[in-house]
Amino acid sequence: MRQARVHRLPAAGPDDVTALAAAFDAGRIDPGAVVAVFGKTEGNGNVNDFTRALATRALGDLLAARTDPATAAAVCLVMSGGTEGGLSPHWIVFEVRPGAGGEAHPDALAIGRAHTPDLPAPDLGRLAQVDMVAEGVARAMRDAGIVDRGDVCLVQVKCPLLTSERVAAAGGDVATNETLKSMGLSRAASALGVAVALGEIDRDGLTEAAIGRDWALFSTRASASAGIELLGHEIVVLGTGREWSGPLRIGHAAMADGIDIEPARQVLARLGLPASGQLEAAQRARVVALVAKAEASPDGRIRGSRHTMLTDSDIASTRHARAFAGGALAGLIGHTELFVSGGAEHQGPPGGGPLAIIVRAAEGTTP
Amino acid sequence: MRQARVHRLPAAGPDDVTALAAAFDAGRIDPGAVVAVFGKTEGNGNVNDFTRALATRALGDLLAARTDPATAAAVCLVMSGGTEGGLSPHWIVFEVRPGAGGEAHPDALAIGRAHTPDLPAPDLGRLAQVDMVAEGVARAMRDAGIVDRGDVCLVQVKCPLLTSERVAAAGGDVATNETLKSMGLSRAASALGVAVALGEIDRDGLTEAAIGRDWALFSTRASASAGIELLGHEIVVLGTGREWSGPLRIGHAAMADGIDIEPARQVLARLGLPASGQLEAAQRARVVALVAKAEASPDGRIRGSRHTMLTDSDIASTRHARAFAGGALAGLIGHTELFVSGGAEHQGPPGGGPLAIIVRAAEGTTP
Amino acid sequence: MRQARVHRLPAAGPDDVTALAAAFDAGRIDPGAVVAVFGKTEGNGNVNDFTRALATRALGDLLAARTDPATAAAVCLVMSGGTEGGLSPHWIVFEVRPGAGGEAHPDALAIGRAHTPDLPAPDLGRLAQVDMVAEGVARAMRDAGIVDRGDVCLVQVKCPLLTSERVAAAGGDVATNETLKSMGLSRAASALGVAVALGEIDRDGLTEAAIGRDWALFSTRASASAGIELLGHEIVVLGTGREWSGPLRIGHAAMADGIDIEPARQVLARLGLPASGQLEAAQRARVVALVAKAEASPDGRIRGSRHTMLTDSDIASTRHARAFAGGALAGLIGHTELFVSGGAEHQGPPGGGPLAIIVRAAEGTTP
Amino acid sequence: MRQARVHRLPAAGPDDVTALAAAFDAGRIDPGAVVAVFGKTEGNGNVNDFTRALATRALGDLLAARTDPATAAAVCLVMSGGTEGGLSPHWIVFEVRPGAGGEAHPDALAIGRAHTPDLPAPDLGRLAQVDMVAEGVARAMRDAGIVDRGDVCLVQVKCPLLTSERVAAAGGDVATNETLKSMGLSRAASALGVAVALGEIDRDGLTEAAIGRDWALFSTRASASAGIELLGHEIVVLGTGREWSGPLRIGHAAMADGIDIEPARQVLARLGLPASGQLEAAQRARVVALVAKAEASPDGRIRGSRHTMLTDSDIASTRHARAFAGGALAGLIGHTELFVSGGAEHQGPPGGGPLAIIVRAAEGTTP
Repeated sequence: MRQARVHRLPAAGPDDVTALAAAFDAGRIDPGAVVAVFGKTEGNGNVNDFTRALATRALGDLLAARTDPATAAAVCLVMSGGTEGGLSPHWIVFEVRPGAGGEAHPDALAIGRAHTPDLPAPDLGRLAQVDMVAEGVARAMRDAGIVDRGDVCLVQVKCPLLTSERVAAAGGDVATNETLKSMGLSRAASALGVAVALGEIDRDGLTEAAIGRDWALFSTRASASAGIELLGHEIVVLGTGREWSGPLRIGHAAMADGIDIEPARQVLARLGLPASGQLEAAQRARVVALVAKAEASPDGRIRGSRHTMLTDSDIASTRHARAFAGGALAGLIGHTELFVSGGAEHQGPPGGGPLAIIVRAAEGTTP
Repeated sequence: MRQARVHRLPAAGPDDVTALAAAFDAGRIDPGAVVAVFGKTEGNGNVNDFTRALATRALGDLLAARTDPATAAAVCLVMSGGTEGGLSPHWIVFEVRPGAGGEAHPDALAIGRAHTPDLPAPDLGRLAQVDMVAEGVARAMRDAGIVDRGDVCLVQVKCPLLTSERVAAAGGDVATNETLKSMGLSRAASALGVAVALGEIDRDGLTEAAIGRDWALFSTRASASAGIELLGHEIVVLGTGREWSGPLRIGHAAMADGIDIEPARQVLARLGLPASGQLEAAQRARVVALVAKAEASPDGRIRGSRHTMLTDSDIASTRHARAFAGGALAGLIGHTELFVSGGAEHQGPPGGGPLAIIVRAAEGTTP
Repeated sequence: MRQARVHRLPAAGPDDVTALAAAFDAGRIDPGAVVAVFGKTEGNGNVNDFTRALATRALGDLLAARTDPATAAAVCLVMSGGTEGGLSPHWIVFEVRPGAGGEAHPDALAIGRAHTPDLPAPDLGRLAQVDMVAEGVARAMRDAGIVDRGDVCLVQVKCPLLTSERVAAAGGDVATNETLKSMGLSRAASALGVAVALGEIDRDGLTEAAIGRDWALFSTRASASAGIELLGHEIVVLGTGREWSGPLRIGHAAMADGIDIEPARQVLARLGLPASGQLEAAQRARVVALVAKAEASPDGRIRGSRHTMLTDSDIASTRHARAFAGGALAGLIGHTELFVSGGAEHQGPPGGGPLAIIVRAAEGTTP
Repeated sequence: MRQARVHRLPAAGPDDVTALAAAFDAGRIDPGAVVAVFGKTEGNGNVNDFTRALATRALGDLLAARTDPATAAAVCLVMSGGTEGGLSPHWIVFEVRPGAGGEAHPDALAIGRAHTPDLPAPDLGRLAQVDMVAEGVARAMRDAGIVDRGDVCLVQVKCPLLTSERVAAAGGDVATNETLKSMGLSRAASALGVAVALGEIDRDGLTEAAIGRDWALFSTRASASAGIELLGHEIVVLGTGREWSGPLRIGHAAMADGIDIEPARQVLARLGLPASGQLEAAQRARVVALVAKAEASPDGRIRGSRHTMLTDSDIASTRHARAFAGGALAGLIGHTELFVSGGAEHQGPPGGGPLAIIVRAAEGTTP
């Protein structure tokens, strides 16, 4: 019987891992049981966001010091830049305790993970990346012991991007030679890879031209984030498994646009946290983590009103989107340590995005 | 018996006044009855935001063409730059129809306005500006026929800023020689002027050193916005008056921080729009306008969690704050044409800001 | 005998035309003789740069007030946003005095202009735009009385861009749906139109796929600038004509990269201003105007060293390029009122750009 | 007899130390002889520039792996963020070879260094910081064996800044609570510390109010750079010493404004590299390193023409200044690996900045 444990810790900077070190010291987290860390860092979330690399380095050094090189290297480090608005930099640390005891619970949180090989630059944003990710998701599901694809609630993918150097090294045979655009294509292909793995779209009918273009194709459970700090993919599957125990529960939904908070409210209600308005303090304390994607709606409108995210040449649209959807979700939850990441290509409907919430079941209840 | 009418119109750009021209053409708005226009434009909202000047010019030209120079010049044009996140550029047009008929209603919306003389650059951010604004607010209240200060719900002030040229012309005798900082000081002194006029703080105890520093002093009903496009102040008072009729109602509250939407929910409930979660479509249609201020909390935290708005050297904190609070409020209201402006010095508690909502009373009811 | 006159005037803001009004008042410039105004305004030079629209409006209003609507409408207003680094906002006013007297001089500055019809959104960035511009250049050359294509020194084109609205209105049949990218494509097609008109490239061999991609194709005399404030093209040809008199001379060259100032030094020497190092004050006074284009080299390198302009997601590469090339040229000239504009697609070699300098001949000399 | 060696190495990213590792591997640089590394990294150069921390970490790890912890910790790591325009990220590695042989040369480059204790937050920007830096400079001069203050050519200081956290921890007793402003004050106090140490200003007459305000006080040889990645100061003195050998020579000058390249040209001439126009390739190869400071002139003008660096709320003025002065200097030198850093408070005259150039003497000559 495995048990998933999830810890949300504050970060005073991209390289501030003191809260994690303290949790190790105090025995609250077992370094050897850590399988993944999601980090919301305070960079721009785009090409030249080096906060992700700095965080990866700081986390990697700490994990290596407390475990061994192989164990540390196996931990999926999914850094997502951008804490625009009032979002707060934080870490979400995922532990899997093998013999944690307790009874299996059909709704208990399950976690699996996989790494892929390095993605050749010419494959980025193309079908080869879709397939590489789909295969990785299948492996991560097996790692989680999830058989039914319907039991998957969120697949978080960290994927690579193209730099000017990588484009040049590839001799120009790339899907795009614009670095910022490569992030979107990488997220797009990764999300379609998830959609294929989860049976949300049909691989046979998928063409390369659809990647980053045909927004009718999407996964409601994919969350992809691109970064300069890796060359392959790190894939983490969250869902419910049959052989997991513990008090953590997870739910998911898709937001139709950046201010569509009602699906999140419904998820909370299903998980035992019904909220009329903002969560009350006692309810809020039971929310362990919220992961969501946000993007500017490609048609330039939200519910018919024009937005200016796509015509702003000073601030990238992903930054706008994180701040805005982050504000909407923080208005519901009542705190700001939310893992909202930007760029939701093929992740939820156009202009919207997937959302997953992990809560702690009330003692003595079965939510 | 006067009647206030308020119209929210979309803008396809800072100089797009076609919706207003169409309303004039169709007789929906009487050009000669327009007393003020609030405009949410898509600039950066800071020093070099020329969208406000462009909008002012476009509106002024249209009003002059449809009325006469004196009438046009008397219209208060309060342009607030910044539609970060998904906020939507729009105009809020205020009409006062003198003999509109109907019965006086004790809760009917009342509007008054005043212009001040040009503010000498050395006075900006100092007690002289506080006094100039306080005197203007008193005049605007008389214009609205509001006797009881408690009947004022919002005082919107458009105030000037300092440019490098104005600083140089003043021979350096200025409260600050940093242009961006001058915007904050101008808003600060204006807000304290409102607070003095409304009896929220005591003028006798106010020192120059407190302006822009002592955040314990604030008005819960002041909203100030600085711009390069004027040298004096435009002041608009919104409240309830005894000799006004019509279906519009107004309520106000103060948000304690950027995600504090519960006060807004309570205002809506008091105005006859109780909402569990986001407003439903029928309710939303009755919301005519929402005006709010947002700012980064000066202590760098929201409910204990660190935010990065004040350490971000790429995006001004006012831009972050508008996007985030805008998202929170849009999550409640359900649309994005919200007049959220940034920089809430002495406007509401530190990190929070005032908020006013104008709604249309349901037919046959007295909300 | 016509005579070209060129005036460089400072601007205290995008809508500051006081220096031009004063020159009209003093009789230094004849409003009816103005054929074009180039304006360097202080916006971001990209999609949401409304300083160009504001400047266009201010100039148009002044010209209409001093001439008549038709004359004012015929003036080419070429606004280029972006005064990054220490570049200084200014106007370059071009007058053509018909019977100015004096003898024809084979090297005298000649000016011609043309307007094109509105460009349908689907044509932007495609061969139809190339052809529209090429035809306009031919007309502008005739207007200047320039027969030999070798006598053209610079063709300045102001071209349109796509907004989210225009893309939507076109039903998606557009070369790109990214607004910032549409600026580059519009400049690219315009530059190729100039190249076709000047015989620098062969129209028959030109394919649509080459636009914005095949950097081996370029004009060394095209300077194109895109803006939201127009829907057609404004085209101004500068060169030497047989029937022009006066003391103004013009030279041109192509910079190979952003720091390649030696060609500019050679142009100055040919025009009678030999400079070892920075121009001396007396020489500098004879430089009437400098027009240049700058861009980030597409390969990410300048003389082998990596630059970061194309991986910077905070500042657009055009802004970097203007500041950097602007600094290099200001180091040569010794002042900062330089008309350096960004985005040199097909304008000069990749990473470089065309350059033209107008000087006043020394009295009593024939440089 | 000591010999100073200086190596300029490219960086493909803030954490790319492969060129340095390769130089260690090849024996071109002795890890144990490295005393300082200056790094030009590609962040925004302001508060939330984490490229400096990432670079510091990568360099520190490499040095620790190749030497020992104490030796590595003693190396001064002076990271300066910001490669705006076409500036190229690079490292300047300073070696001191103790028994390198050769004859002492009166003009040979000499290097000294010092670290200070952590600066308490309340001392930042105040006289206590001036004194701490002045004392450190004196130590660094002794380390270099420089007795005559006139033999110092450049003092490079890396100094700390205030974050929201540090301000809060200090209980508000700080010179400023604005993080970006704290960078300027830290540079200002550091520069005055250098000026005191070099006898350029009189410590007795210096008041706290002058720090960051009285621009008549400055050092022509101070270069200060603030960063979040350290709490004390790293100080490196470059000059000429009596007991140093080797082919490296150094010269210095002060630029009066951002385009004042003539002093740099004169320094080159004095060092044996006379240039009419841009350096020729053979000359350029002998330029080992160029270090300069740039800033927006506080009066908003360059040689009488308005600049917009101080009214731009989208891009910090330091970023503009680096790009512009960087372009001017690159136009002279002919390459882009220039260590131009921003914010020249009390470093050179207002709007200008100090400049030092290290060249390799031609073989067989004594420049």
